[in-house]
Amino acid sequence: MFRHDKRLQFEAKPEKPDPLFAMKLQELIGGAFGEMTVTMQYLFQGWNCRMEGKYKDLIMDVATEEIGHVEMLATMVARLLEGAPSETTAEAVRDPVVAAVVGGMNPQQAIVSGGGPVPADSAGTPWNGKYIVASGNLLADFYANVAAEAQGRLQTARLYNMTDDPGVKEMLKFNLARDTVHQNMWLAAIEELKEDGLEGTVAPTALFDEENQTHANTIWGLSEGSTAAQGRWAQRPAPDGQHELRYLDNPDPLGGPASAPPPDPKLYGTFAGVPGEGSAKGAQRAPGPRESLTDKVKDVFE
Amino acid sequence: MFRHDKRLQFEAKPEKPDPLFAMKLQELIGGAFGEMTVTMQYLFQGWNCRMEGKYKDLIMDVATEEIGHVEMLATMVARLLEGAPSETTAEAVRDPVVAAVVGGMNPQQAIVSGGGPVPADSAGTPWNGKYIVASGNLLADFYANVAAEAQGRLQTARLYNMTDDPGVKEMLKFNLARDTVHQNMWLAAIEELKEDGLEGTVAPTALFDEENQTHANTIWGLSEGSTAAQGRWAQRPAPDGQHELRYLDNPDPLGGPASAPPPDPKLYGTFAGVPGEGSAKGAQRAPGPRESLTDKVKDVFE
Amino acid sequence: MFRHDKRLQFEAKPEKPDPLFAMKLQELIGGAFGEMTVTMQYLFQGWNCRMEGKYKDLIMDVATEEIGHVEMLATMVARLLEGAPSETTAEAVRDPVVAAVVGGMNPQQAIVSGGGPVPADSAGTPWNGKYIVASGNLLADFYANVAAEAQGRLQTARLYNMTDDPGVKEMLKFNLARDTVHQNMWLAAIEELKEDGLEGTVAPTALFDEENQTHANTIWGLSEGSTAAQGRWAQRPAPDGQHELRYLDNPDPLGGPASAPPPDPKLYGTFAGVPGEGSAKGAQRAPGPRESLTDKVKDVFE
Amino acid sequence: MFRHDKRLQFEAKPEKPDPLFAMKLQELIGGAFGEMTVTMQYLFQGWNCRMEGKYKDLIMDVATEEIGHVEMLATMVARLLEGAPSETTAEAVRDPVVAAVVGGMNPQQAIVSGGGPVPADSAGTPWNGKYIVASGNLLADFYANVAAEAQGRLQTARLYNMTDDPGVKEMLKFNLARDTVHQNMWLAAIEELKEDGLEGTVAPTALFDEENQTHANTIWGLSEGSTAAQGRWAQRPAPDGQHELRYLDNPDPLGGPASAPPPDPKLYGTFAGVPGEGSAKGAQRAPGPRESLTDKVKDVFE
Amino acid sequence: MFRHDKRLQFEAKPEKPDPLFAMKLQELIGGAFGEMTVTMQYLFQGWNCRMEGKYKDLIMDVATEEIGHVEMLATMVARLLEGAPSETTAEAVRDPVVAAVVGGMNPQQAIVSGGGPVPADSAGTPWNGKYIVASGNLLADFYANVAAEAQGRLQTARLYNMTDDPGVKEMLKFNLARDTVHQNMWLAAIEELKEDGLEGTVAPTALFDEENQTHANTIWGLSEGSTAAQGRWAQRPAPDGQHELRYLDNPDPLGGPASAPPPDPKLYGTFAGVPGEGSAKGAQRAPGPRESLTDKVKDVFE
Amino acid sequence: MFRHDKRLQFEAKPEKPDPLFAMKLQELIGGAFGEMTVTMQYLFQGWNCRMEGKYKDLIMDVATEEIGHVEMLATMVARLLEGAPSETTAEAVRDPVVAAVVGGMNPQQAIVSGGGPVPADSAGTPWNGKYIVASGNLLADFYANVAAEAQGRLQTARLYNMTDDPGVKEMLKFNLARDTVHQNMWLAAIEELKEDGLEGTVAPTALFDEENQTHANTIWGLSEGSTAAQGRWAQRPAPDGQHELRYLDNPDPLGGPASAPPPDPKLYGTFAGVPGEGSAKGAQRAPGPRESLTDKVKDVFE
Repeated sequence: MFRHDKRLQFEAKPEKPDPLFAMKLQELIGGAFGEMTVTMQYLFQGWNCRMEGKYKDLIMDVATEEIGHVEMLATMVARLLEGAPSETTAEAVRDPVVAAVVGGMNPQQAIVSGGGPVPADSAGTPWNGKYIVASGNLLADFYANVAAEAQGRLQTARLYNMTDDPGVKEMLKFNLARDTVHQNMWLAAIEELKEDGLEGTVAPTALFDEENQTHANTIWGLSEGSTAAQGRWAQRPAPDGQHELRYLDNPDPLGGPASAPPPDPKLYGTFAGVPGEGSAKGAQRAPGPRESLTDKVKDVFE
Repeated sequence: MFRHDKRLQFEAKPEKPDPLFAMKLQELIGGAFGEMTVTMQYLFQGWNCRMEGKYKDLIMDVATEEIGHVEMLATMVARLLEGAPSETTAEAVRDPVVAAVVGGMNPQQAIVSGGGPVPADSAGTPWNGKYIVASGNLLADFYANVAAEAQGRLQTARLYNMTDDPGVKEMLKFNLARDTVHQNMWLAAIEELKEDGLEGTVAPTALFDEENQTHANTIWGLSEGSTAAQGRWAQRPAPDGQHELRYLDNPDPLGGPASAPPPDPKLYGTFAGVPGEGSAKGAQRAPGPRESLTDKVKDVFE
Repeated sequence: MFRHDKRLQFEAKPEKPDPLFAMKLQELIGGAFGEMTVTMQYLFQGWNCRMEGKYKDLIMDVATEEIGHVEMLATMVARLLEGAPSETTAEAVRDPVVAAVVGGMNPQQAIVSGGGPVPADSAGTPWNGKYIVASGNLLADFYANVAAEAQGRLQTARLYNMTDDPGVKEMLKFNLARDTVHQNMWLAAIEELKEDGLEGTVAPTALFDEENQTHANTIWGLSEGSTAAQGRWAQRPAPDGQHELRYLDNPDPLGGPASAPPPDPKLYGTFAGVPGEGSAKGAQRAPGPRESLTDKVKDVFE
Repeated sequence: MFRHDKRLQFEAKPEKPDPLFAMKLQELIGGAFGEMTVTMQYLFQGWNCRMEGKYKDLIMDVATEEIGHVEMLATMVARLLEGAPSETTAEAVRDPVVAAVVGGMNPQQAIVSGGGPVPADSAGTPWNGKYIVASGNLLADFYANVAAEAQGRLQTARLYNMTDDPGVKEMLKFNLARDTVHQNMWLAAIEELKEDGLEGTVAPTALFDEENQTHANTIWGLSEGSTAAQGRWAQRPAPDGQHELRYLDNPDPLGGPASAPPPDPKLYGTFAGVPGEGSAKGAQRAPGPRESLTDKVKDVFE
Repeated sequence: MFRHDKRLQFEAKPEKPDPLFAMKLQELIGGAFGEMTVTMQYLFQGWNCRMEGKYKDLIMDVATEEIGHVEMLATMVARLLEGAPSETTAEAVRDPVVAAVVGGMNPQQAIVSGGGPVPADSAGTPWNGKYIVASGNLLADFYANVAAEAQGRLQTARLYNMTDDPGVKEMLKFNLARDTVHQNMWLAAIEELKEDGLEGTVAPTALFDEENQTHANTIWGLSEGSTAAQGRWAQRPAPDGQHELRYLDNPDPLGGPASAPPPDPKLYGTFAGVPGEGSAKGAQRAPGPRESLTDKVKDVFE
Repeated sequence: MFRHDKRLQFEAKPEKPDPLFAMKLQELIGGAFGEMTVTMQYLFQGWNCRMEGKYKDLIMDVATEEIGHVEMLATMVARLLEGAPSETTAEAVRDPVVAAVVGGMNPQQAIVSGGGPVPADSAGTPWNGKYIVASGNLLADFYANVAAEAQGRLQTARLYNMTDDPGVKEMLKFNLARDTVHQNMWLAAIEELKEDGLEGTVAPTALFDEENQTHANTIWGLSEGSTAAQGRWAQRPAPDGQHELRYLDNPDPLGGPASAPPPDPKLYGTFAGVPGEGSAKGAQRAPGPRESLTDKVKDVFE
């Protein structure tokens, strides 16, 4: 269960309104790597964590902090929009400064939200659930968390250069710092997963004995004139300590032709009666409608 | 520019059709961490890479390989669907085996594709461009690449247990291996970025001097009864070698109330005439419509 | 079946073109509460209405009117775009007025539609089927209809202040009026549902005898310092005449820990072998792979 | 800022797993009217509320409760999935019971989440930000809140009939009760907005003096044979106390033809040189390219 | 403006309910090539048509018919769902026939619509505005219309084989016929556009004099072992009567390396100080921050 | 399998940067008819083609070329963005030229991509998998290919008029030419499908004997005052040589009322106990709950 404190985690007071920056700041609210994403990503990871204890607790601590980050940014956007032009008619737009401001505003912050934030990014695309990942495998998810914090910090840094407002900059400095902590923290948690014997370097640390070992250490060079072989990555042990990466220059394909089987006549695929190579069934018999559905299903499953 | 070879990178021949598995395998084609995602993610990263040389070449090598992975999976799906029931009427569905098969099929693989793959995931959600990231910052992007390969390998491993077909398992063993190589490779490339002096541990490795140092090393404990402080992560140097992570148990908020400013009357927000605290402008003057638009815009920008 | 009359329901003639307003007006065409939404919402409600007679007929009357509203707005947008700059090159953009206009235009109204409307909102997001609701329960749906008309009228009112054009204002006055009628009408229809004995105040008016009565009248106070208890809502009979609302200040949770059960080993969730509390099955036996799939499925269903 | 308590607001323990119900229950997590929607809708409404005091506090109280509802449902889904078949191969599917179960499962709850919930609905569609509304106008938003709680309670009631599990039913009874409280509460808050003189019945309660009064009280009868005129709604004062609703049977359109203006030649619309009627500009001059861009823009804006 | 007739364009009465087919039939309602698509596509094309007369009238005639097709299908779905299992608990699902039926149903047709259609396709993906095209160029749009009717008829034909119900088949025979008429009609309209001298064969029939004639007739052979040169298409005049198609086997690229310019330091792209080849500006000066923003913007535009 | 050549298919060098055009050019990358669409559309068509030989080879040749087109456009966008303002603060925006440029830029090309392209269109909407079609029926798909190339060429032509930059124009002339070739080529391939006896004019060329012949040649006139009957299309043989199109002016509906059956009581649809006409089952018996689920399912399927 959750509780709310009316105070913001950190102050979010611009010195002056700035409707253009209010549009850009939406990226940190509802963008693919914005605060709605890390909020929901960590909440679902916490709820999907299969071990009570420090890992789950860490995830829930950070998840709860992130809800407060959406709050800070939402408040900042409302304040940046204070006094933004809401009556800009065609007449008014003939003033180039007004026109410019209007051109750079998000129309939905006025028409839809009445001067507040929207759950969308800086291009107006609504946030969606596919932005998050919560797989139950902590190693795979912590890599995703590092990546999310890294992209988040990068976008914050870019936005930091797009404002001179001391109040906005103060808040963004706090956000940068939190993204730094969280990157360090998820990287440390990855190390701890290994030390605790729960996961290795490659996620998931399973099925190594079954995977195709011949092809588990080769970088395929498929771009003409590539110099990728010059990287030290192609000349030393892989980070997992189990493979030796090496570079294959311009290798041949290993499979047969990429053919599709003959279509079912009832699906009206264009077909000239030549059975497809590589078909699981085509090799064994001629194509065509089968006698009955019962036979057909049997045929597929037996 | 690209060229195509008709042969598959690796063989994709099921021993028998299996329409239920054909639906599940869609996750590796059009899912958030499927092959369409890594194809487009690496292509856009390569085209957006700002240095000629080994990094860009590595990205383009792998991007080009991934297009061929979509091809392998698309071919496999078409073959798994060979002979799948296309005439299953209400009558036929009274046979429980037929009904079960129909229930577990993706209807669009028949109705829309005529027995082939769709650019969607195992729940039928279409692939979209927000699944990818190509920021121009190689450290941030390589973290995202490790994460994508980790989730991809995890999903492949789960799917590996959902089939007994030797041909399908053979292909999935190859896919597992490629995901292993790529995880190792991106991790090695991260190390190399550091060794080459291009990036550090935290992305982007910039603005440390400006970020709020007071809050750059504390984990906020906001979940009652959390044991996250017991992790070694809270008791040792952070991975970046620059911060010392520590745990704050149940800290107080640092900011003021999360209030929004009074609305513009022309936007019809409900308002009782009480100026909002925390407003950038409310502190300085009473709310209300201003005299003219010109004044208003001036007001906002001055 | 439907028929078309070439005349518009109401005139839609701007005095002058205004490409900036043409972009904003898209909100009323393809926004979440635009005319495409009410058109489709009412059509699906009418087709899904389970009683012949006045309710269904009312829904279909209004649905049919709304198609004509999309037509009015689409025509208005095409006329507002007449003569909009289609050749604005980098050179031209050096003129600030031209640049400003270009900045505030929807590029797809030119590139995609050739000077006409798009089925999208003012931020360019395409309309989608999730905007509508047609549940078969008329009380629940009529509440949704009131809400849709209220948001629609609010957005129309905001747009009304963003233009000086007499022709545009004339049409928007008509739209405001129609939204007023429709709000009144759906509210009246809700009253009539009650008078006709078909539904009560809370939707659906069923399962009251089974719902948890202990928790059916308490407002949970979970925000520190909340003054919500001061509302008269917490001190008088609820609108349904059956409950007495009251405010619980800072109540304790009623459930146990939010733990998840141990993962299936074949799904590779990170797990340390500690059974989850609260698991439906964990209490009864140790986690681990079961002997056979048949046993496993039995296990789940028995 | 937010804080988390590890205990659930209400218990969420199924007696037995049920993977089919786990799929259906997704509707209450990530559906258009699920708990993610009310969480985000109320949070954004609270942050966008322009008056400190009881209204904003009420919104934030309920918003905070709703985060805990997502938590309850997410936990329930993970528990319902315990032991769900993860190895169901084609061979296994020949057992009709297994096959049936597999057919009715959400494949992503296994492949993507490893036995946990996804931020999506019962058909697998991801949650998105367009599901919520937070307009700054409390009357319009409270109508939307009533509607959301009504649809939510309706869906909960339908799901209640799809399970026999006592633990699941216990939780759903709590959910039904909470939806009842919240419907009553938002309806009471609407009354209080009126009593406090902040809003009237029609939202927004503004622009009545400017809207077209001739068309503000007529229901247009556009469906042949409609009996909608028989409703008492067409024969008594409107709920707002300001209008008298009445029914117009089969009225004529009020506007002219729905014509579009001639296209800009540079946009390559098909055109035969006949100027469009109803064009803002067509009446005044012949179509064709203008001399220069500067003239053209002037032309549009003057 | 539109009017409604309560009767269906064609009868839509199944002999018996069939919930599995009700799910599949959604493809024709809300799929990419379903009736909602052609309805909206033709309506927007009609409203965006720039010539009064036969072309616009034809489009509006067919658009109006298509609304009635959505109505027929929506009605059919509601009837096919009559009596569909709404109480199927875990207990009930142990009956394989029940389980199978449940597995193949669309859960939202029950939970969300209460036994009616949803504005989505057979995989549950909601309809969206990007499915339609209305460009203002009639030739380009009529090609799109032929394509939409062709895919629609193909999907109808596939669905025709998935039912034995005489009532459903009767309706689908009508739908097949309408798709046949409409394909013929749009093809005839394309011919008439040419005969009327409004468009040629290639859309848009403009800019031929400016396009690169050297590359306007060559098919590039980029797939190893391709036999595409054997098509007669590579050996005869092109359909537009203006070009002579021919096949280039394995041609070389014509451009330089696909390099990107050095990044702006304020955007934190990873960069080693090596200016990119092919940059518009890189050739002329060293990368790095410029003195002032004013200079910078000037720099870009001059 | 695929291979990459570092050189571009055609040169993509602007003479000067132009961030406004960089935003517009996104339409050709990630728009509904952009190069990502034709790339994926042709790849999936090729992989789903059921005949080895010239048709499949042609599709794969063109698909492979299109990947290179995305590459050209992505490179062009990165170059057009070189030096675009990344530090435009509120202060700077007071310069109208700067403001105008900022207003017309895509904020995500800076914040998200760091000066590069995004997989989205000119309004910022991300590309998605529903843009493509690959049905297995070559006739239906080739019509869709002609349509895609036509819309693509139309949009390219519109963009061609929005730039003066010689380098950009040079590339667009090449693109125009390729779109011309491809339109001609797909039209020629349609002719060849007919000559080869694989398909006829109407897709799919099947089920003519079963479709409703009475309604397979009539254009329904449903728009009052329509002049569509004047088209020669209504007076001559249809293009398929099998039907004779004719125009029906204002025809009557052929079906009965569009009623829905009574709802299942467990789904809580509002219902007054009047059985729906047109119900498959209502005619036979009174509505109401059935005795047991087993009976109910039997009832539906027997």
